[in-house]
Amino acid sequence: MHALTRLASCLIGLAVLAPVHAASDANALRNTAKGLFQPIPDTPPTEVRGLAVTEDQKELGKWLFFDPRLSRSHILSCNSCHSVGTGGADNIPTSIGHGWQRGPRNSPTVYNSVFNIAQFWDGRAADLKEQAMGPVQASVEMNNTPAQVEKTLASIPQYVDAFKRAFPGEKNPVTFENMARAIEAFETTLITPGARFDKFLAGENTLDAEELQGLRLFVDKGCVACHSGKNFGGQAYFPFGVIKKPGADVLPAEDKGRFTVTNTATDEYVFRAAPLRNVALTAPYFHSGEVWELEQAVAIMGSSQLGHELNDKEVGQIASFLRTLSGNAPDIVYPILPPSTAATPKPQH
Amino acid sequence: MHALTRLASCLIGLAVLAPVHAASDANALRNTAKGLFQPIPDTPPTEVRGLAVTEDQKELGKWLFFDPRLSRSHILSCNSCHSVGTGGADNIPTSIGHGWQRGPRNSPTVYNSVFNIAQFWDGRAADLKEQAMGPVQASVEMNNTPAQVEKTLASIPQYVDAFKRAFPGEKNPVTFENMARAIEAFETTLITPGARFDKFLAGENTLDAEELQGLRLFVDKGCVACHSGKNFGGQAYFPFGVIKKPGADVLPAEDKGRFTVTNTATDEYVFRAAPLRNVALTAPYFHSGEVWELEQAVAIMGSSQLGHELNDKEVGQIASFLRTLSGNAPDIVYPILPPSTAATPKPQH
Repeated sequence: MHALTRLASCLIGLAVLAPVHAASDANALRNTAKGLFQPIPDTPPTEVRGLAVTEDQKELGKWLFFDPRLSRSHILSCNSCHSVGTGGADNIPTSIGHGWQRGPRNSPTVYNSVFNIAQFWDGRAADLKEQAMGPVQASVEMNNTPAQVEKTLASIPQYVDAFKRAFPGEKNPVTFENMARAIEAFETTLITPGARFDKFLAGENTLDAEELQGLRLFVDKGCVACHSGKNFGGQAYFPFGVIKKPGADVLPAEDKGRFTVTNTATDEYVFRAAPLRNVALTAPYFHSGEVWELEQAVAIMGSSQLGHELNDKEVGQIASFLRTLSGNAPDIVYPILPPSTAATPKPQH
Repeated sequence: MHALTRLASCLIGLAVLAPVHAASDANALRNTAKGLFQPIPDTPPTEVRGLAVTEDQKELGKWLFFDPRLSRSHILSCNSCHSVGTGGADNIPTSIGHGWQRGPRNSPTVYNSVFNIAQFWDGRAADLKEQAMGPVQASVEMNNTPAQVEKTLASIPQYVDAFKRAFPGEKNPVTFENMARAIEAFETTLITPGARFDKFLAGENTLDAEELQGLRLFVDKGCVACHSGKNFGGQAYFPFGVIKKPGADVLPAEDKGRFTVTNTATDEYVFRAAPLRNVALTAPYFHSGEVWELEQAVAIMGSSQLGHELNDKEVGQIASFLRTLSGNAPDIVYPILPPSTAATPKPQH
């Protein structure tokens, strides 16, 4: 999955760049872009892992995504750290969880996450179903247990009915795994089509000269080696600091990234390339969440990953281009959650 | 505002109660009820304090209600403790705020709160505008300052535009007070018409025999002395434990209620009668939030306020009736909040 060779090949033979002037230049750039990127589709995937995603699963998953009773405290829901109102993330350096503990890494956006090859910064979850089981149990996040979650959900008749509808034919559908499957089903709907860049890809002249120049730089300087495809990233793993290690504030020595997952020396400080869709909405940046400005993040990537000291103009152009990746989030009506019963476990703080 | 005399008059002359059998009994009960209660209207109030509530104010208020950047930590919003998905409250004993500190009292529901005579358990805020300024500044809640909030909102161009639209003609509309006015405007929309009880009031036969009997008990036993009107409460102040003080778990000695507001000895342990709309969705109960079952809350009220040791059947009937007060919450589309800028103050944890 390493793509160092791909990355290196992109670092070779960079030409002096001319500004994007004419319509023909824009069209040529569009054709290049079409070979590297795909738009976010207008409609969500209809299946995951070969299984159909049903409306009943999505609706149940929406309840669960917003339900703070999945946490031990009854005050933290999926939406607490992956808020659909703020770019699908929490916009703080690293998340605050149970007991006001700080998590180790910046909360990744839930939007378009269904298009990533794997989940978490280190890709340790194969898919969104597996991912959804993590934070519920993590002691610094929701600090709950599968047994307690199942007891909670089984104590609420409307949830029992909703699980039956979502997973018909199962003898005991109220399970921790089905909770995760339903959340995943809801998350498949969290896609953001209609970005200005996607309209450009489709043939519209939605990008101005600065943004077009940013796109050209993004391609020609080699950013695209890691950030391509539908999600502008999220597809493969790369060492952070391949050319030059950033400071310990941005790349803390104690977080060895994917090494923790694979226990392979070459995976030290390796992370999944961040998907850049809606990146303008998901500051602060990097797994450490220590960089607040998009321009600074671009400059750090240039020097640490590509060996380019991008000048301010280039950084500004690339950042302007990245701002065209913000799409249209779906309308999400806040779910009215079914009330607890006498059998529902009480919150613990 | 004390209504002890009113309360006392209701305690006198309670007759032995017969069950509600026939249609004519139900109609007689409906007529009695019509004199005591009013339905939640189908549409929100169009003005507050004689000022029109505009669509632009409501929309801005919705952003603000869901925006965690009103808190110092950037993780707590109005909706954290007054969640529109869980009865307009947080369903834990007392709220958890900045630094995981516990607040002193149970979070009251935001639904139908526009119909209360004043806000907070002790009525210390005259209206929702005044109320909205409290939790933002309380150190155990959002722990922010008016200056910091204004700086935050003024740093985000879309907010500046939204304030201009909401408060046209004002030279500097981005103020802490206008923040509160906008939140109040949004909160006027948080009403829940269509409860089964309201349909009964309107002439439909939506209540079963158990619920009708509960309504009769609610009236005849004297509950109605404090819990009447549109909101079944929220209109006047009463001592908790007028007949018999509940235990210190339910009525902690250190929280003297309205005494803190008025500094008047007769206001010791006086609280605003809780509005009972949607009470089935807002456990746990009382200002201490120490009672989880609606039946237990009813029994405590019977003994502490009315001097009645209600039997299990009566308690069950009253609770069944109270469950008919759950109405239809409005569809609230989760707002997509405008992103921060370089000038936005950073979160502090």
